[in-house]
Amino acid sequence: MTDHETDHEPDHEKTQTADSALLRNARAHALAARVRLMAFDVDGTLTDGGIVIGPGGELFKRFSVRDGLGLVLLQQAGIRVALVTGRNSEIVSQRARELKIETVLQGVADKAQAMRDLCDQEGLTLEQAGFMGDDWPDLPAMQAVGFAATVPDADAEVRRIAHFVAGAPAGAGAARELAEFVLRAQNRFESSLGRFDGRTA
Amino acid sequence: MTDHETDHEPDHEKTQTADSALLRNARAHALAARVRLMAFDVDGTLTDGGIVIGPGGELFKRFSVRDGLGLVLLQQAGIRVALVTGRNSEIVSQRARELKIETVLQGVADKAQAMRDLCDQEGLTLEQAGFMGDDWPDLPAMQAVGFAATVPDADAEVRRIAHFVAGAPAGAGAARELAEFVLRAQNRFESSLGRFDGRTA
Amino acid sequence: MTDHETDHEPDHEKTQTADSALLRNARAHALAARVRLMAFDVDGTLTDGGIVIGPGGELFKRFSVRDGLGLVLLQQAGIRVALVTGRNSEIVSQRARELKIETVLQGVADKAQAMRDLCDQEGLTLEQAGFMGDDWPDLPAMQAVGFAATVPDADAEVRRIAHFVAGAPAGAGAARELAEFVLRAQNRFESSLGRFDGRTA
Amino acid sequence: MTDHETDHEPDHEKTQTADSALLRNARAHALAARVRLMAFDVDGTLTDGGIVIGPGGELFKRFSVRDGLGLVLLQQAGIRVALVTGRNSEIVSQRARELKIETVLQGVADKAQAMRDLCDQEGLTLEQAGFMGDDWPDLPAMQAVGFAATVPDADAEVRRIAHFVAGAPAGAGAARELAEFVLRAQNRFESSLGRFDGRTA
Repeated sequence: MTDHETDHEPDHEKTQTADSALLRNARAHALAARVRLMAFDVDGTLTDGGIVIGPGGELFKRFSVRDGLGLVLLQQAGIRVALVTGRNSEIVSQRARELKIETVLQGVADKAQAMRDLCDQEGLTLEQAGFMGDDWPDLPAMQAVGFAATVPDADAEVRRIAHFVAGAPAGAGAARELAEFVLRAQNRFESSLGRFDGRTA
Repeated sequence: MTDHETDHEPDHEKTQTADSALLRNARAHALAARVRLMAFDVDGTLTDGGIVIGPGGELFKRFSVRDGLGLVLLQQAGIRVALVTGRNSEIVSQRARELKIETVLQGVADKAQAMRDLCDQEGLTLEQAGFMGDDWPDLPAMQAVGFAATVPDADAEVRRIAHFVAGAPAGAGAARELAEFVLRAQNRFESSLGRFDGRTA
Repeated sequence: MTDHETDHEPDHEKTQTADSALLRNARAHALAARVRLMAFDVDGTLTDGGIVIGPGGELFKRFSVRDGLGLVLLQQAGIRVALVTGRNSEIVSQRARELKIETVLQGVADKAQAMRDLCDQEGLTLEQAGFMGDDWPDLPAMQAVGFAATVPDADAEVRRIAHFVAGAPAGAGAARELAEFVLRAQNRFESSLGRFDGRTA
Repeated sequence: MTDHETDHEPDHEKTQTADSALLRNARAHALAARVRLMAFDVDGTLTDGGIVIGPGGELFKRFSVRDGLGLVLLQQAGIRVALVTGRNSEIVSQRARELKIETVLQGVADKAQAMRDLCDQEGLTLEQAGFMGDDWPDLPAMQAVGFAATVPDADAEVRRIAHFVAGAPAGAGAARELAEFVLRAQNRFESSLGRFDGRTA
């Protein structure tokens, strides 16, 4: 999953890469500005992809306290947050309750269809929805919505189609980084921070 | 387990290394094309080598969701997948059930003999079998089969005899990378991806 | 959460950065010299920020044995140690008991107020208090006390206002590094080490 | 715990450092050749220093399968292996049973005295004993024995007095690297490997 091809690019290609990175960032910014519903895959997106198996089955998932605050910040800014996962686990329901996330779809075989249904229910267009995922089962949903985000060590195909690739790892800041990116795109970052910052609160 | 000797190699040796890396890759590709049965060691190969001990014994193993999809993709492409481990744990049986892997050999003292027996049962030659391992107990099996794969932080002896060394870490993408390599070698990568990709599905 | 802007700074800015790093370090040293009460956030400061959820809720937190010795060293040097966290968990009480920390404030919504109350109870000024945190909810407390410390992968706002940023990661040496920094600032490092060092003990 | 001072050393100091590294390695080799009893601290040496606390106390420790094989190889070569730890945990006893280590000393306040007692019982001199540790409580034992080893992220004082500093991390190969170093120093590496290697077995 390493990008060997980038090791040998000549300088003018590096410049092109920098330019296209700027363009990609500007485009992601514009797409994120429209998001009213942000959906997240769980394993490999809100976790580092670890599947922890004990003798009786799945024992726990490891989430991030800082990612959790990111999901809370999105909701405080009026953006609906959803968890959409192919697996089934009471663990995900527990974490959702902690973060007051009401929309939790588990055992989802077709995540694109799940996003279309969610948007219908919420009276939103697909352009107003975002999806953050990391692997092949997330591809259709990421292609269906208006804003596709992923994590730095995602599968190469997923990174190729994503509008936004976090720098912080999955399960350790990627979702928080995405949340702050969306808040900035919607000019809500300073007011979110202001609730915490002792100087302005 | 670091390779200090590679730090000081002169430029012409680097070129030779690059050439031999290309040759090694081409050879691995040819060997992987023949694989009908792919066997995996568990600890240090499908996990990062962590042995998690509680007061009552082994508590859990940490697998990877993306490695798991890799093993599923191999099976969907008609390649038999086996787990072959020297330890004994209900944990491994649990993970195998999740991934619908039927061939699980535990408490195996002689992994080379296990591979010979498996090939006999399946009516395959050893050249049609692959083995991915990480440490000394895996050496005989890796030397017996046609295609030997390992993980980046494997023991030096194991890396030396492996045809394929993954770039992604054990328990975090190594097995997935191996699976995609085998699928590409057998010209099945695009059709595997196509089942997920929204553009082609 | 990466600092892209630092990649392109010209040389004279690097010099200024080095100078300002020296100044910042000298200032942190002076502020740490006054600390009589050192408070720590828990998740993301004494742990790496992992929130481990099982089917029944939070399963465990992962602390560091070396951070633990740091907190013991502070107490042996007569500095009061407190844990101040927004979450609620018997896990934190367990860890505090192991380290003989008596002041454990959980479910704290306003950490700045908690620090003001603690200082009142102890007959200390806020200048004699330190706080180590990692995220937005820690900002007011870090701005209220005399000495603000954080971890290397803390939120950017938090790093910006901190007097001391550890090099070792949260949950893996950051608190120990902070403890040794405070002991050195108070000329107590050698006597602390002397209790262990075979040459001087 | 980073070594900032090494960033700015001039070239001739680098050469001196390389020379002294060679000398240090030769000395470590000579000292390791005499070892008949090799003792290991547990937390931070055989684990990465994580202390995992659940609501009811310590939940588990995470060891390494490859470190485990290292301890087995030492014993197969006739070197006595001991675990010496300041904490108390049934977890350590469990791991010791798995690796057939009979000498397990827990709750040890004075590790140097423990090593003196062990050597007396075994009829060995302290020069024939080795100790691998990572933090201040290990200093006296490391100074008492003939061969002192540590892990790469050990406390600076510990690294300074160690004869051998592993490159692989604690809990993920450091003890294995130490074991192979001792086996090589005693000309037993090839025969140990030969039991596993398909070519020679």
